[in-house]
Amino acid sequence: MNSIDHYLEKITPVDRSILKTLQKRLDAQTKPLGSLGRLEELCRQLALAQGSPDITCEKKMIFTLASDHGVVEEGVSAYPQSVTAQMVANFLQGGAAVNVLARHAGAAVVVVDVGVATELKMSGVLDRKIAFGTANFAKGPAMSREQAETAIMTGIELALNHEFDLLGTGDMGIGNTTPSAAVVSVLTGIDPERITGRGTGIDDGTLRKKVEVIRHGIARNNPDPRDPVDVLAKVGGFEIGGIAGLIIGTALKRKLAVVDGFISTAGAMIASNLNRELADYFLLSHLSAEKGHGLFAEYLGKRPILDLGMRLGEGTGAALAMELIDAAVRLYHDMASFEQAGVDRKKEG
Amino acid sequence: MNSIDHYLEKITPVDRSILKTLQKRLDAQTKPLGSLGRLEELCRQLALAQGSPDITCEKKMIFTLASDHGVVEEGVSAYPQSVTAQMVANFLQGGAAVNVLARHAGAAVVVVDVGVATELKMSGVLDRKIAFGTANFAKGPAMSREQAETAIMTGIELALNHEFDLLGTGDMGIGNTTPSAAVVSVLTGIDPERITGRGTGIDDGTLRKKVEVIRHGIARNNPDPRDPVDVLAKVGGFEIGGIAGLIIGTALKRKLAVVDGFISTAGAMIASNLNRELADYFLLSHLSAEKGHGLFAEYLGKRPILDLGMRLGEGTGAALAMELIDAAVRLYHDMASFEQAGVDRKKEG
Repeated sequence: MNSIDHYLEKITPVDRSILKTLQKRLDAQTKPLGSLGRLEELCRQLALAQGSPDITCEKKMIFTLASDHGVVEEGVSAYPQSVTAQMVANFLQGGAAVNVLARHAGAAVVVVDVGVATELKMSGVLDRKIAFGTANFAKGPAMSREQAETAIMTGIELALNHEFDLLGTGDMGIGNTTPSAAVVSVLTGIDPERITGRGTGIDDGTLRKKVEVIRHGIARNNPDPRDPVDVLAKVGGFEIGGIAGLIIGTALKRKLAVVDGFISTAGAMIASNLNRELADYFLLSHLSAEKGHGLFAEYLGKRPILDLGMRLGEGTGAALAMELIDAAVRLYHDMASFEQAGVDRKKEG
Repeated sequence: MNSIDHYLEKITPVDRSILKTLQKRLDAQTKPLGSLGRLEELCRQLALAQGSPDITCEKKMIFTLASDHGVVEEGVSAYPQSVTAQMVANFLQGGAAVNVLARHAGAAVVVVDVGVATELKMSGVLDRKIAFGTANFAKGPAMSREQAETAIMTGIELALNHEFDLLGTGDMGIGNTTPSAAVVSVLTGIDPERITGRGTGIDDGTLRKKVEVIRHGIARNNPDPRDPVDVLAKVGGFEIGGIAGLIIGTALKRKLAVVDGFISTAGAMIASNLNRELADYFLLSHLSAEKGHGLFAEYLGKRPILDLGMRLGEGTGAALAMELIDAAVRLYHDMASFEQAGVDRKKEG
């Protein structure tokens, strides 16, 4: 048994009986029953993950995992690979979108190099580099099975070694919508054409090429859809595996993970396919504008919280959703009950 | 010319040319073009309303207008009328959902009595009482034309006499989904059955009765759909008129109004039908779970920002949307440009 399996065995199925206490409190509050809709559902999801009706989300942390992708040599991205490392520097200086939104949400951003193609001589980035980018999966596997396991283990250990109430996932990696679409296509059986989009903004010709590269990469490497680690190794990316690991680690800590967009959802799908119990330990922050993300959500049976036409990654969607979760927790703790406020209840009959 | 017309004539059409400066800044930021989706759109809407690319939303204020409705004697609500005044007390003590969410969003809540059925002996509530509730519109007009004009003028003056960058609308009034559906049915021509929902939670029989009461009230009072003040007077409510006024006043101050849910949107529709230019001065915060709200949004040609299955009113949806608008403004001001961060731009060609 490898270390990942060792951890997966420790995932606790959630205990739905605790929802009774939580619901009783929600229903005593000065509002019509259920009228806070999704915010009440967020309270329930948090309680299930945390294993207690005393929900909390004081400490919020977003992990932005950066990595490069050999497949960019096929010309599938609108931006040069140099941008991955440059954006890591931007994260460290606090000028990227995820920094601004994390500050707004009161969340910390932890920047992790899991496979940037250049040596990063920057202080403030956690060095968990697995390799200098993946190999080009159009020509062979993106990484070895051992590297795929290391990517997942890296995510698990990042989560285990940090303190948080709510974890957000994030990614940075030029070209990473390509392996994400490839991973999801293999795991779900959905044709690549339906889940391959324009990423950072490619034109029609490049989009056609991108679909072909994914199709060809899957055919060439023949990943086993029943083996998520094999899928990650053959056509994935280090940050995608790392994000899968973050979700596993979050569940081990009995916390809730807030999954960002397209790339993060591909990671969540790997996690979820490794252990179905994990589904109770994460939610989808937003519906990405990247083509096919709605199908990802459907496959996972989850409805994203926000739908703002965003397609940026980094953890930006997770940061925004964290604010709503925080608001839901505040409602749960701070609203007056009918009794406290002296407000009459619903009429009988 | 009455006072409302006097104000309506002063509404300035927005100047779309200022968007060029704003867009230039957005497009220089370290993100793929347009990748912040709706958040970028919020910046544009704020700039148009404020008449400047130097958008700001430092000072946020939610006006929660409370009023009662004679039509409750037809048995259209699940809660007794006493709850309106009791909830006003709850607002003043800070225990209601809107208080919690406004605190979370950094917004002030201004509670206004525009027509609660009992004398409120509470400090902290603004007394703008027009009457002790409307009359039962199943038996005659809900209010006089003069009262309808006073309701709208009250909202206009509330907005004009307060300082804010962003105004949120809110309502409290047992029974007020009934006049809201009636007003919208008349203004849009949509059959009441399609836009009449369960409000605070009525059963099937009460819902059927509610539809009939609306249908009957419209037939009996015969409001003129081309005259929004007449519609408000015949089948509306004081808070609905007040909210229409808040939107007019916000536009006069060249600010943006964040419209809450079902009741507030009915108010927004009255405003918008009084002057089409107003449409650039408000947005819909969320899609209410109350039946038919999606049709309201469609009629106004606006897509609500959030869709969280909420149906509480008070300004709760406005408070949540204000957080997103605030986040959008922070992105606009705080993100680094490609040049500042030394990040390479999109590849040519």
